[in-house]
Amino acid sequence: MSEQKATNIHWHDGTVSRSEREASLSQKGCTIWMTGLSGSGKSTVAVVFEQALIHQGKHAYRLDGDNIRHGLNKNLGFSAEDRTENIRRIGEVAKLFADAGIIAVTSFISPYRSDRDLVRALHDEAGIPFLEVYVDAPLDVAEQRDPKGLYKKARAGEIKGFTGIDDPYEEPGNAELHLRTDQLSVDESVQKMLDLLGERNLLD
Amino acid sequence: MSEQKATNIHWHDGTVSRSEREASLSQKGCTIWMTGLSGSGKSTVAVVFEQALIHQGKHAYRLDGDNIRHGLNKNLGFSAEDRTENIRRIGEVAKLFADAGIIAVTSFISPYRSDRDLVRALHDEAGIPFLEVYVDAPLDVAEQRDPKGLYKKARAGEIKGFTGIDDPYEEPGNAELHLRTDQLSVDESVQKMLDLLGERNLLD
Repeated sequence: MSEQKATNIHWHDGTVSRSEREASLSQKGCTIWMTGLSGSGKSTVAVVFEQALIHQGKHAYRLDGDNIRHGLNKNLGFSAEDRTENIRRIGEVAKLFADAGIIAVTSFISPYRSDRDLVRALHDEAGIPFLEVYVDAPLDVAEQRDPKGLYKKARAGEIKGFTGIDDPYEEPGNAELHLRTDQLSVDESVQKMLDLLGERNLLD
Repeated sequence: MSEQKATNIHWHDGTVSRSEREASLSQKGCTIWMTGLSGSGKSTVAVVFEQALIHQGKHAYRLDGDNIRHGLNKNLGFSAEDRTENIRRIGEVAKLFADAGIIAVTSFISPYRSDRDLVRALHDEAGIPFLEVYVDAPLDVAEQRDPKGLYKKARAGEIKGFTGIDDPYEEPGNAELHLRTDQLSVDESVQKMLDLLGERNLLD
């Protein structure tokens, strides 16, 4: 079949580059890594942040427990090894989304500094922006909110190794943004995240 | 801090839906799963297919050995168990991209029907289009191309369990598209893939 039927295809050597994908989407890909205690407000803020981006015509995708724990990471438990692998995989997937030109927003407790720093390093190596957002509410505030009733179970000993109760949360030392959600409204927190992206020229 | 500073944020209850993301991107998300022997032309066709989509203003992302084997799946080997897990993870990530409204294009040998069918089922459950493309060149043609010199090594016994030599390739029974790359030019193959997306109204 030597006849040339396709007439509307034009290509260059090699693969489509990240910058071409970004130009096509009119934005830059990046990963926004939200970390904090259960009940700190990560998901609440992430949901509104994603909406705000979409309303601005930007393209974002949220990775959270709902679409990761029951899918990609459903074969992982809560051992130290599995927790580390959980964060590593999420980091790799966020990096793929960012490489695709999407604003990847992750919302996981991710309590260990070494795990978060490994994900940061993966992004740095690839030249992909990684912005860590520390979603911070004091433990007593988070525990009072207890949106999923998990602190109550942890205090009752029904859940072992719960972050903030009998497993540590290691605060970020180098987060790009620190949100005190006990002092900021959801809108204010989201605005600060939008401002951060703007300052980094990630919304152009 | 009761003062309301953020004025440009509007939201609705709940999370951004797939259809909102798709509307924002002016396309529908889906997974194009390319399967076939090493040397069948998967990557060559996938690269031009991605370019053709980008040139049409569409948003696609290619998952292949380059960005998966050295990243998300770098802790997997080539045992039967690891091969299955390799394909499962790729399927879950493709599904996330499709859920984000992106045209996810995967390019892996994926020799076992059960593994591919598992990924198809994951998509079906979520109502996400999954299109299997059988990139088919006869073994002798693929072996003659041998772009990576792998058949030569497999014939010499330097690689064990190589698909087509001493490990089976299970042909798709229900692929949405069958490309005989020994009979079609790259352009023709790509055009057939574009036609398939058009027929399924995935480019609207």
